[in-house]
Amino acid sequence: MSLMKRVNLAAIPDGMPKQSDFLVEDVEAPVCGAAAVLVRTAFVSVDPYLRGRITGVRTYIDPIPVGNVMESSCVGQVVESQTSLFAKGDWVAGFWGWQEFASVDARGLIKLDPATAPVSTALGILGMPGMTAYFGLTELCQPKHGETVFVSGAAGAVGSAVGQIAKILGCRVVGSAGTPSKVAYIKSLGFDGAFDYHVEGDYLGLLDEHCPKGIDCFFDNVGGNLTDDVMMRMNSRGRVAVCGQISAYNDPAQDIGMRPFSQILVRQLRVEGFIVSRWADRYPEGRMQMALWLKQGKLLYEETVYEGLESAPAAFIGLFKGENTGKALVRLF
Amino acid sequence: MSLMKRVNLAAIPDGMPKQSDFLVEDVEAPVCGAAAVLVRTAFVSVDPYLRGRITGVRTYIDPIPVGNVMESSCVGQVVESQTSLFAKGDWVAGFWGWQEFASVDARGLIKLDPATAPVSTALGILGMPGMTAYFGLTELCQPKHGETVFVSGAAGAVGSAVGQIAKILGCRVVGSAGTPSKVAYIKSLGFDGAFDYHVEGDYLGLLDEHCPKGIDCFFDNVGGNLTDDVMMRMNSRGRVAVCGQISAYNDPAQDIGMRPFSQILVRQLRVEGFIVSRWADRYPEGRMQMALWLKQGKLLYEETVYEGLESAPAAFIGLFKGENTGKALVRLF
Repeated sequence: MSLMKRVNLAAIPDGMPKQSDFLVEDVEAPVCGAAAVLVRTAFVSVDPYLRGRITGVRTYIDPIPVGNVMESSCVGQVVESQTSLFAKGDWVAGFWGWQEFASVDARGLIKLDPATAPVSTALGILGMPGMTAYFGLTELCQPKHGETVFVSGAAGAVGSAVGQIAKILGCRVVGSAGTPSKVAYIKSLGFDGAFDYHVEGDYLGLLDEHCPKGIDCFFDNVGGNLTDDVMMRMNSRGRVAVCGQISAYNDPAQDIGMRPFSQILVRQLRVEGFIVSRWADRYPEGRMQMALWLKQGKLLYEETVYEGLESAPAAFIGLFKGENTGKALVRLF
Repeated sequence: MSLMKRVNLAAIPDGMPKQSDFLVEDVEAPVCGAAAVLVRTAFVSVDPYLRGRITGVRTYIDPIPVGNVMESSCVGQVVESQTSLFAKGDWVAGFWGWQEFASVDARGLIKLDPATAPVSTALGILGMPGMTAYFGLTELCQPKHGETVFVSGAAGAVGSAVGQIAKILGCRVVGSAGTPSKVAYIKSLGFDGAFDYHVEGDYLGLLDEHCPKGIDCFFDNVGGNLTDDVMMRMNSRGRVAVCGQISAYNDPAQDIGMRPFSQILVRQLRVEGFIVSRWADRYPEGRMQMALWLKQGKLLYEETVYEGLESAPAAFIGLFKGENTGKALVRLF
């Protein structure tokens, strides 16, 4: 009998999540189940959408109950297999708990080839955030060559991919982020314009300057006042993909502002919210395309890595403080 | 030289339009232009969207300048023709000024058959409002048999048609209006549920009671608090057609409320605003379908008729006071 660390949900966060909402504890390590593999967790993904799973309320998925282990997308290495699908030593990606070892149903796992790309990319550019960027942009925004695409949260895992894909598709791409260093990062990715939306008063001028022909596609990760301002600059028949509203996750009741419906009407906008799993059957296509662009050097990515499972709560909390550039990850080994 | 009456825009309304924003004056009647017909105006249409044309600001169409004649869809009878397309005595529908006689380019006119339906229907159920209902509902809401459709402004020219079409398509249909008599009218059209949304506090219970399975399609003519409440009851992958926001037209800066983007995201809603002219090339199809349903007795319509050109400003102002049931019209003869 051996012990391992895991991270439980200790309390439903009230507003901004804090360290005491989580509990790191030592528990007995699991044994490998039938038709399962025992994985040693190498990377745990922290993503903004997880905030919606720890509200105690069901949305499109059940909430994580208080006292249960936190869970998210993870990458690990097989240490024992009870299935012919995987062998000891294989690298896999899937969905399991914030814990050092997990017995995972083999049917929910994807085998990774470390020679193709670093295994951590299965949580970022080649994983859920990459698929979110690829399908959200191409299917909902449907950008055309020469159109202007605006991306909020453009230094994040999703936003940075969205902007680069839009550039590949021949668009003018403008992005916003919350610090000068993130703005510099966005520019380094080839965006045509970028600004710090925390510099109030200033950013409207930059938004107009960078989008002289208005905005045709808006990929929103952030919400709030910036979204109000972008809606006022959308071109007729513009498309808005609502991917995230990180500014509102911690205090939805305070998400008060100008209702967008008059702009949606007069500008004939199409606004659609999405959960990327609607395209789950097309992930292989998305991964192949993203991997090709990655290999061709057309896509770059960044990771903000937190060390040790104990840092998972801090990594998650950091998302809402804007700590991460690119994909936020927790590395266990 | 003969004189006629016309109604000019006298001032940009500040908030709710008032009588003094319009000027009824006697002017010289026009002569029939080349390739034109001289029409005697029988009906002038007043529609909520016209509020957007007298703000002094360009939207999807140029504003009507102060001092110019007001204009909208009209029906009239040809008194003189300089084209082979129309003869004296023909009934026509088109777009011209609020004036007793107008010289109108024949290419912009539709010939009406008074034997098929009363000519005034060319401004209502078989005209722009009918096309708005037909294409907005079928193209943007795409209701499926058995789904729940909610319509705001359901006693209006557009809303009453939307609800009836949704019933024809096999949906559960619930509507809101602003007076008890309008609610009774909606029920008489076969809606499954209806309520007066001006009865605050009460209507949420009725909304839930009438929509026990949530709302799949929302056809919005009104906006405001009711829209916020409906958004909270939309089913996953629901569709919202933003047709009008009459509650906000007179004071857009005060259209403050809960931002809908978090609901759009979590419920994966598709929200689209539209101007019906995007389907102009399909109006013949729409008119044919609506005329057939009308003939089959599957579609009913109501008109609120104001008598005399001088009453056009009052008819228009009445739209924002909820005076009309069904189509608001001004009859000249």
